[in-house]
Amino acid sequence: MRSQVGIVGAGPAGLMLSALLAEAGIDSVIVENRSREEIERTIRAGVLEQGTVDLLVRHGFGARALAEGARHDGIELRFGGRGHRIDFAGLVGRSVWLYPQHEVLKDLIAGRLAAGADIRFGASDVTLRDVTSDRPVIAFTDADGTPTELRCDVVAGCDGSAGICRHAIPDAERTDHFRAYPFGWFGILVEAPRSAPELVYTHSERGFALISTRTPDVQRMYFQCDPEEDPDRWSDDRIWAELQARVAGDGFRLVEGPIFQRGVVPMRSYVCHPMHHGRLFLAGDAAHVVPPTGAKGLNLAVADVVVLARALEAYFRSGSTDLLDGYGATAARRVWRAQHFSWWMTSMLHTSPDGSGYDLRRQLAELDLVTSSTAGATFLAEAYTGWPLA
Amino acid sequence: MRSQVGIVGAGPAGLMLSALLAEAGIDSVIVENRSREEIERTIRAGVLEQGTVDLLVRHGFGARALAEGARHDGIELRFGGRGHRIDFAGLVGRSVWLYPQHEVLKDLIAGRLAAGADIRFGASDVTLRDVTSDRPVIAFTDADGTPTELRCDVVAGCDGSAGICRHAIPDAERTDHFRAYPFGWFGILVEAPRSAPELVYTHSERGFALISTRTPDVQRMYFQCDPEEDPDRWSDDRIWAELQARVAGDGFRLVEGPIFQRGVVPMRSYVCHPMHHGRLFLAGDAAHVVPPTGAKGLNLAVADVVVLARALEAYFRSGSTDLLDGYGATAARRVWRAQHFSWWMTSMLHTSPDGSGYDLRRQLAELDLVTSSTAGATFLAEAYTGWPLA
Repeated sequence: MRSQVGIVGAGPAGLMLSALLAEAGIDSVIVENRSREEIERTIRAGVLEQGTVDLLVRHGFGARALAEGARHDGIELRFGGRGHRIDFAGLVGRSVWLYPQHEVLKDLIAGRLAAGADIRFGASDVTLRDVTSDRPVIAFTDADGTPTELRCDVVAGCDGSAGICRHAIPDAERTDHFRAYPFGWFGILVEAPRSAPELVYTHSERGFALISTRTPDVQRMYFQCDPEEDPDRWSDDRIWAELQARVAGDGFRLVEGPIFQRGVVPMRSYVCHPMHHGRLFLAGDAAHVVPPTGAKGLNLAVADVVVLARALEAYFRSGSTDLLDGYGATAARRVWRAQHFSWWMTSMLHTSPDGSGYDLRRQLAELDLVTSSTAGATFLAEAYTGWPLA
Repeated sequence: MRSQVGIVGAGPAGLMLSALLAEAGIDSVIVENRSREEIERTIRAGVLEQGTVDLLVRHGFGARALAEGARHDGIELRFGGRGHRIDFAGLVGRSVWLYPQHEVLKDLIAGRLAAGADIRFGASDVTLRDVTSDRPVIAFTDADGTPTELRCDVVAGCDGSAGICRHAIPDAERTDHFRAYPFGWFGILVEAPRSAPELVYTHSERGFALISTRTPDVQRMYFQCDPEEDPDRWSDDRIWAELQARVAGDGFRLVEGPIFQRGVVPMRSYVCHPMHHGRLFLAGDAAHVVPPTGAKGLNLAVADVVVLARALEAYFRSGSTDLLDGYGATAARRVWRAQHFSWWMTSMLHTSPDGSGYDLRRQLAELDLVTSSTAGATFLAEAYTGWPLA
């Protein structure tokens, strides 16, 4: 089997890349080890940057995001028991959209299949061969058990943080930039109406809390916890008491309801350097992971493939490898900006297990400065709503 | 001996306070354990915020600062081997002034003495008594050996970070918020012309460096070092090699010259909480210390006494203690903002002994964001040039 580009992974990066390539007349095949059903039912939060929504709309995948997603023109930074709004629309003329990642994936999969894309769901034993040659191979066992080889000109590694592609870059040529945080997020899904019109990022002496939303009837809430915390040790009453205590002040109360899902999310950062090796190009979580505080994961995956698609277009049109050679450096600038922003939001809002009263007061002063300075709030809004796409 | 206000310490805080009080018709006596000569010859760097210069000018102490100091309309942030200017004047319409602290002190001392102020230089055995009564006492031995008691209504503790006043707040009622950094600054004074028109704050993989200036012929340079570093272990050649390596790139070279002073400065932060106790009010370094990266020390001392003088004026005019009671909270807001800014500049520009490649790249992305975003650069410029005085 042949295609110009072989894509490993039908996540946001892989699907969006195949769409951009198709529009440029470049054929691709996606090899994915999960089933379509598994991808579509794995519930993932989603905050889409304005640029991500614009891109989805421009390429025909945005109708449902616009109709069913919710535009948010700001967030609330809550500290010292009071809320302080960051007015994205007023400060930078951009907004974000709340629309879950698995819904984005449904739209991308449906759109790509309708356009005749070749997506091999349920592939197993996926391996890469000859990525430093000009005829790399993706070998896998098809869903029906047939051993298959996909020969291509270029491989795009879009198979996420637990994928195989990254490891095709030899250890000796790869630097894994890791950073772990000494806390996790205890997340719950709740049947209840919204507690606030926009996302609430809360700093408190008890630790961080995030009040988010999924639908008008289902809310997502998180609070900072020990990364080893066992969520089953917490009664519903204890969870609500902790959340209410963190957001308390000026009369604000969370609307409580039945908790129907719970879990602990680790907080970590990762960047793979380099992002390409021979004819293998990594994009999205395969190349980098951010903690969820900055809401950058999906957006960064999309930004990567915009850069990669343009480079592949130039390559297949003219044979020039200039843009492909520069892919890593171009993508890395945004990747590290997002790493910084995610670290900033995390370190400004979370308490450290070995943190002191000094650190707590310094954080409060930082939040005071950011929210009381138009420049500070704008700097945050620029990052949260997303820097311009390449 | 009696005075309405007894001031311990003839540093920037004590001298400026006595001037502000005199203009409000409130008499004060300053008790200082150093001699006038010692104060005036202890060379200290000085970056004056626009508001500090304006205040000095308004009260008649600014003529020499304006004539002999140098207005700086920006700084250079240097990273990745390139300089990036932060244009204070263009971004926030304010500047800073380079004018050494000991020169400010000469001007304040001369001005206060000419106006008939009572400054007891060379006092020894200074102690405080009865600060929680309405007749606190500063007891000391005068320069001529006479045991003296100064009875006053209010004591202002302006005796710096090694002073006695802070300790008059009982341990049980005082929280010492300390933060030490795992590095120091190796500082040199050099006979040479300037290497750059403005201050250069340099991030490099080898650590931070600051290229500052004292006069057209004398330059001040610093580089991050181990806090226990022995400056005598360094040859001049090794110092220059290290400094040149840190600022290298795009052809920039430091103008070298004879090194005639060297020393290692510790980097630490401190805030005393509360800032007052009974009739004792702390101001300046007696209450808080910042690392020099943010150039905030002297400016913060001046900002404290502006708040304190206004509160004392209200008290002596009407007997109302409202502003005095609020002194700590009012002053602390700016104090913690300056603590944050100093921490920010320090953590953005210094390498950590246990820092990783991740941290280094995150810092570079932060510097990239701050210097390429008007909002980011403005946020920094607002802080560096100083928030409005109360």
